[in-house]
Amino acid sequence: MLKQGLRIDGRRLQQTLETFAEFGCTPNNGVSRLALSEEDRQARDYFLLCCEELGMTVKVDDIGNMYGTLPGKNMKHPPVVIGSHLDAVEKGGRFDGALGVTAGLEVARTFIENKIEPQVPLIVANFTNEEGARFEPSMMASGILSGKFNQLKMMQKRDSNGISFDEALRKIGYAGDKKNRLTQAAAFIELHIEQGPVLEQESIAIGAVEAVAGMVCYEIKVTGESNHAGTTPMSMRNDALFSTNHLMVEIRKKLSELDQELVYTMGRVNVHPNIHTVIPDQVVFTLEARHQDPNTMRQVERIVESLPESNHKDGCGVKVRKLWDRDTVYFDKVIVNKIEKSAASLGYSTKRMVSGAGHDAQFLANYIPTAMIFVPSVKGKSHCEEEMTSWEDCEKGANVLLRTVLDLARL
Amino acid sequence: MLKQGLRIDGRRLQQTLETFAEFGCTPNNGVSRLALSEEDRQARDYFLLCCEELGMTVKVDDIGNMYGTLPGKNMKHPPVVIGSHLDAVEKGGRFDGALGVTAGLEVARTFIENKIEPQVPLIVANFTNEEGARFEPSMMASGILSGKFNQLKMMQKRDSNGISFDEALRKIGYAGDKKNRLTQAAAFIELHIEQGPVLEQESIAIGAVEAVAGMVCYEIKVTGESNHAGTTPMSMRNDALFSTNHLMVEIRKKLSELDQELVYTMGRVNVHPNIHTVIPDQVVFTLEARHQDPNTMRQVERIVESLPESNHKDGCGVKVRKLWDRDTVYFDKVIVNKIEKSAASLGYSTKRMVSGAGHDAQFLANYIPTAMIFVPSVKGKSHCEEEMTSWEDCEKGANVLLRTVLDLARL
Repeated sequence: MLKQGLRIDGRRLQQTLETFAEFGCTPNNGVSRLALSEEDRQARDYFLLCCEELGMTVKVDDIGNMYGTLPGKNMKHPPVVIGSHLDAVEKGGRFDGALGVTAGLEVARTFIENKIEPQVPLIVANFTNEEGARFEPSMMASGILSGKFNQLKMMQKRDSNGISFDEALRKIGYAGDKKNRLTQAAAFIELHIEQGPVLEQESIAIGAVEAVAGMVCYEIKVTGESNHAGTTPMSMRNDALFSTNHLMVEIRKKLSELDQELVYTMGRVNVHPNIHTVIPDQVVFTLEARHQDPNTMRQVERIVESLPESNHKDGCGVKVRKLWDRDTVYFDKVIVNKIEKSAASLGYSTKRMVSGAGHDAQFLANYIPTAMIFVPSVKGKSHCEEEMTSWEDCEKGANVLLRTVLDLARL
Repeated sequence: MLKQGLRIDGRRLQQTLETFAEFGCTPNNGVSRLALSEEDRQARDYFLLCCEELGMTVKVDDIGNMYGTLPGKNMKHPPVVIGSHLDAVEKGGRFDGALGVTAGLEVARTFIENKIEPQVPLIVANFTNEEGARFEPSMMASGILSGKFNQLKMMQKRDSNGISFDEALRKIGYAGDKKNRLTQAAAFIELHIEQGPVLEQESIAIGAVEAVAGMVCYEIKVTGESNHAGTTPMSMRNDALFSTNHLMVEIRKKLSELDQELVYTMGRVNVHPNIHTVIPDQVVFTLEARHQDPNTMRQVERIVESLPESNHKDGCGVKVRKLWDRDTVYFDKVIVNKIEKSAASLGYSTKRMVSGAGHDAQFLANYIPTAMIFVPSVKGKSHCEEEMTSWEDCEKGANVLLRTVLDLARL
């Protein structure tokens, strides 16, 4: 009955998150905390300090992932792991990643404060370089842990100043031991901000995330002919931009007829030569689309890959190249149910969701039963200084995390 | 009768133009010869040498314009001026500008070779920095001569390395005397490649250019909201690119209903933040339009300036800003008629044309009776290494120039 009434300390959660937000803070309440930067080192040191103050042992693996362990009665049992990442994009928000780590610490504090010894070990984790903003790709460390990425290649990745991941990791003192890697666990749960507008719009407190949507990304190149803007009659032009315009409208129209949960974005457009007095001879743009249902994704692929190679009557050529794709990752049904049940038992409104954004959880789900908890993002904003989640919602998310861990740790 | 049969030497014209093409020649038969560069100096030195070999006196004014004078019987009569420019854009063609200067030299050579002394002085001119590729704006020297540009401001213009026009002019040794400026003339005739496809497409040898089209250039900014491409449902987006798409289609449709000689170009498009996983929050693009009829230009302005400030149902804002405009410049009817008559008397097909491109002639027309002769550009290509005009067409153009000068010099 005591445990039914157990709650995290919302004020303490806020204070800890605000302390993390000091490391790399920007003028407008955001953070710049690129992976393995000096700011990241400061945040890591503080995480280490918090764990040690709680009497937790912290281990660091060879990719810089940090694991603070609260012992359980049965130390041979695989641990329950909670956490997220402390790195942030340039001028990002204070909640993305940091909330999951902070809530993890808060759950451990609540256990210790209430002298609750879990049946199984509880690990609070900070994964390295989730954002991929300094060293591509994103979700690098979880990608290595899950075998998705080759470690040697990742260690050699360089930032824009030519510094390798390996050098940067050593420089901040967080190159640990491979034997400390997370190789098995009973569960992994990541609390994270939604980074989209759905929960706020629908006034729902908690998202029980059951999958990360599959996605595909294309690069589409339209080639026309460059000519003088003043001397070339309209009828004699092969204008790559006009052609692209029609193509974009056409693609959008076709995609809008598919399932309404499909999202698609043309985010990057480069026009050549990009001079106001010259008819463009080339436009290259990206098209990425995301949806949980593989059938919908096949429909997208059919639409894009069946675009005619020469476009309309405008004499321009069209080349479609798939940059990459990834399948939908389904989270562990048992854990998703427990999250939903926990939220309901706390009286919070919930919604089953599919994450459109990528998270470490999707790679860890490869070998650990995994799920995620979402809390609302004000106006859906993320990766920017305006990123905001109310303290009340942060507290609710952390309480759902706590209750789900209690459930998983059989308390 | 002798003068009726007089022709320039096509082989010599070719050789001279090929010599100019060596100064700054590029691997693919083009030239890079930015204004006041070392390559420009070499071309100027060669022009000086050619003039001096012909016994012509060369004067240089304070803007670096060069004037080679062939004396006339009546030295008090204002001169007939022929010429163009020797500067070229980066990786430009060998004909743009250089043809007009070379043909000027060839006309002088033909006079001297045939011991013809004109009634009035004949000046072969090379105008500085027509292209504006190193120092903006283009047509700088003719702009100063005609009072369109402030000389002091122009002298302070800097290239991308911070070198001022003034410094560069002194460095190559072509800072001359203000008293040498071209202050009055009986006529200015510029032979130039068309830089468009019309003459070639219609198999016409000579364009008698009666005007330079008026133009207007706008910058249009579409503002939406930036959000995560994976987490923002389609219905909750304010996608600046999608909005721009519709706007471009709409503008194009309306402009296509105006006079069919109107040309309009969206040449520069910048998308922000231009990341494939982020919904664009801003697109800025240019729209420029050209036509000889002021009424048509007013129609263009009405269409663009009456675009609604908030676009469609997509929640994006639209801001239209006029960057600049210029009125149509009409050339001297008498000279245009003489050009047409000269071409006809040589048995060449001709067409009255309006230049869509800008030329020094349009500024000089401010105070000198002026016209231009166009010769065909293969595929309309210009400002690129592929720029090409057949030697036969170059010769025809120079012969029309010769005959028009004979006519103007009353021979």
